Amino acid sequence: MTTHLPSRRARRDLRGPVTIWEVGPRDGLQNEATVVAARVKADFVRRLLDAGLRTVEVSSFVKPSWVPQLADAEDVFSALGPLVRTPPDGVRLPALVPNEPGLRRALDCGVKDVCVFASATESFARRNLNRSREEALHVFEPVVAEAKSAGLGVRAYVSMCFGDPWEGEVPEADVVSVCERLVGMGCDQVSLGDTIGVATTGHVDSLLSALGEAGIGPELLAVHFHDTYGQALANTLRAIELGITTVDASAGGIGGCPFAKSATGNLATEDLCWALEGAGVETGVDLDRLVETSVWMASVLGRPSPSKVVQALARARDADGREERPGEVPA
Amino acid sequence: MTTHLPSRRARRDLRGPVTIWEVGPRDGLQNEATVVAARVKADFVRRLLDAGLRTVEVSSFVKPSWVPQLADAEDVFSALGPLVRTPPDGVRLPALVPNEPGLRRALDCGVKDVCVFASATESFARRNLNRSREEALHVFEPVVAEAKSAGLGVRAYVSMCFGDPWEGEVPEADVVSVCERLVGMGCDQVSLGDTIGVATTGHVDSLLSALGEAGIGPELLAVHFHDTYGQALANTLRAIELGITTVDASAGGIGGCPFAKSATGNLATEDLCWALEGAGVETGVDLDRLVETSVWMASVLGRPSPSKVVQALARARDADGREERPGEVPA
Repeated sequence: MTTHLPSRRARRDLRGPVTIWEVGPRDGLQNEATVVAARVKADFVRRLLDAGLRTVEVSSFVKPSWVPQLADAEDVFSALGPLVRTPPDGVRLPALVPNEPGLRRALDCGVKDVCVFASATESFARRNLNRSREEALHVFEPVVAEAKSAGLGVRAYVSMCFGDPWEGEVPEADVVSVCERLVGMGCDQVSLGDTIGVATTGHVDSLLSALGEAGIGPELLAVHFHDTYGQALANTLRAIELGITTVDASAGGIGGCPFAKSATGNLATEDLCWALEGAGVETGVDLDRLVETSVWMASVLGRPSPSKVVQALARARDADGREERPGEVPA
Repeated sequence: MTTHLPSRRARRDLRGPVTIWEVGPRDGLQNEATVVAARVKADFVRRLLDAGLRTVEVSSFVKPSWVPQLADAEDVFSALGPLVRTPPDGVRLPALVPNEPGLRRALDCGVKDVCVFASATESFARRNLNRSREEALHVFEPVVAEAKSAGLGVRAYVSMCFGDPWEGEVPEADVVSVCERLVGMGCDQVSLGDTIGVATTGHVDSLLSALGEAGIGPELLAVHFHDTYGQALANTLRAIELGITTVDASAGGIGGCPFAKSATGNLATEDLCWALEGAGVETGVDLDRLVETSVWMASVLGRPSPSKVVQALARARDADGREERPGEVPA
């Protein structure tokens, strides 16, 4: 197969390498209408690793009734076999845990990296976590402590860092105070979520600067942008310009069915890779293999991938196929 | 109607104001399968002006058989009435002219700003202009001279500045030499086109830097990105970071039907406005009115707007509508 890559022109102002925290199997599939079988999810994870991604978030140990799409977390980890307990060098397969029972389920599966998830706003905490923002942080405290003492890596997600559908503007001081609490309780990294995709590069600047002033520098942070307003890639690149080295993305841009109102997907991993490879920032990703995986997952989900790079490279691959067999009449 | 705007966080490193060169009626409609009536095109231009855009490229005086969608340039300008010969302060309504007969048609219509269009590559010049790159530049020389002596503003487009579908990589030296020629013959501005949407921010850096070294600074340049690989907004913002103050965009992201292979639209004006308003850069655009216009144009074209902001704000407006009339049962 022909390799399709952007022209490479290294930017000296962009620090690499960048770690892509692949959230497709968890944040992506969690928000898709189609329910995917556990062994297919495990295949998805394996294909993402084969494409060069090193951190692939697998699933979530929330109550199965909360997120039916991820009710099979145990089955997915079991289908991944020895990869989970003895991962190859540099490979991480994290899972979300909402509380201590969730952490125990994760430990039983051999999971080595867990993520808790907090909210920057009161409204979203009550709707998504069924608790006040403060109560949710209290619940996480023993979870983080136990996870750390078991030698696990711990990441915290903070939702609604750039805007909230019920509250509108989110004060930066609120985001900072939640992040301080999470770092204070021992989380290794906080991923700043733009859950509704409203952020702009100006907001990225001001939030990262507010966090920096509070002593929470880029080395403790990751960014997680949704593409609802078309800003996800621009915001992610801005964060990288400002020193962030871990960024979240979802293979094929899955998550949030485009046919459902008000739900849209994460930044597509392929669109991010195109941007980074072109700017000379190493990602370790084999873009052709990743696109192949996303084309396959799109067929599983029964809808085209929202990723522009997937769409463009899938067309280019079709065209290559035709050029290679000029005697054939294309359908 | 509720106003939906991003949180405003001014970036001190972004110079404003930015002039948006709206290309929807020309570059957008030229690439749409649906043929739109002249009076509807004129309405489109009027609505774009009402939304605060100041430069709206109206049509093209190429041979009607070349671009059937724009064969009615005279009718569109005539439907615009006095706006063309006596435009309000700051308003510009440019048109493309490929040669001297085209320029005469434009002058007959009262057009005050014209654009010529060159190619950075030999392959595209032969396919699109039906001439060698050099011959095309020769054809433009008297056109630019006549236009300037008639007191018109003259812009030059250069296609395939960042990659060519037949040639692949495009040497920066080739782009620089074509731009030097165009500036040398008197063009006021050169718009650097990423016709196939492959550029990344690294390439923006290196091309602008090569042009700068040749004495062609940002004040002589504009950028024109297509979103084929999802990079258009990131690249445009990068160009603005580097001092560019005129950027091309298409209302609703029209141009290049998403249902046709290998054709995709321009950067959507709305997605650009969201990014700039959020970062504190003035555009003068009323985003709600612009979205309303793009929703209307999408209905004319019979397909949803590819702009993420249009999609998101159209959903938000529907939701507002429902909230305002809680007694009604939504369909």
